[in-house]
Amino acid sequence: MLKVEHIGIAVRSLETSIPLFQRLLNSDCYKKETVESEAVQTAFFRQGETKIELLEATNPGSTIAKFVDKKGEGIHHIAFEVADIYAEMERLKGEGFTLLQTVPKQGADNKLVCFLHPKDTNSVLIELCQEI
Amino acid sequence: MLKVEHIGIAVRSLETSIPLFQRLLNSDCYKKETVESEAVQTAFFRQGETKIELLEATNPGSTIAKFVDKKGEGIHHIAFEVADIYAEMERLKGEGFTLLQTVPKQGADNKLVCFLHPKDTNSVLIELCQEI
Repeated sequence: MLKVEHIGIAVRSLETSIPLFQRLLNSDCYKKETVESEAVQTAFFRQGETKIELLEATNPGSTIAKFVDKKGEGIHHIAFEVADIYAEMERLKGEGFTLLQTVPKQGADNKLVCFLHPKDTNSVLIELCQEI
Repeated sequence: MLKVEHIGIAVRSLETSIPLFQRLLNSDCYKKETVESEAVQTAFFRQGETKIELLEATNPGSTIAKFVDKKGEGIHHIAFEVADIYAEMERLKGEGFTLLQTVPKQGADNKLVCFLHPKDTNSVLIELCQEI
């Protein structure tokens, strides 16, 4: 793994959370993107080589809506950039981790992504991602 | 804020979580440190310019013990490195955030630290830190 590519934070409303994180981080949201397949709207901030990704559900069936309903707002996942997502998936499978995808899927921010089941990772939801 | 200095993850046992994160991150734990004042043992991994900090409580009254009892293992906080912690505390107070310290305290890894109350930050516990 190369670096922490981003930290995903589940929020109820980008409309209130974007200005909040602008004040907190003292930097502007530089990109918003909707990922239809995940039913989320995202908003990105830069902090050094890492991004902060705010996530708002676009419908009640979205994974993010279920997370917020169950646990409230807060940190949702950590994404690590990898050089070769296929090789890293193979390596992690060999180490006994459970992958939530058998092949990488298209994520936000022009990435191929794969998640690891948090049951194997001290309840931390981990995303692997590779720029396309 | 300059970068994500580290991500703190609360675990029940460093003895099992250090080898787990070594396999996950494909890198070695390079430092362990006990912070008596916080009643935690910590273990650090590098990922690019960011560290992953595992936190195990050393007694049941520790903040980390209470977190794990209430919410289970998982991501506990995000720490941002700042150039001048006193100036940043002043700026954030002016923006309406609630600081959990009135003056910075000594944290792990040779840092001055200050936490923000998560009630103002979408339930994300934020640490400011500055190398001493």
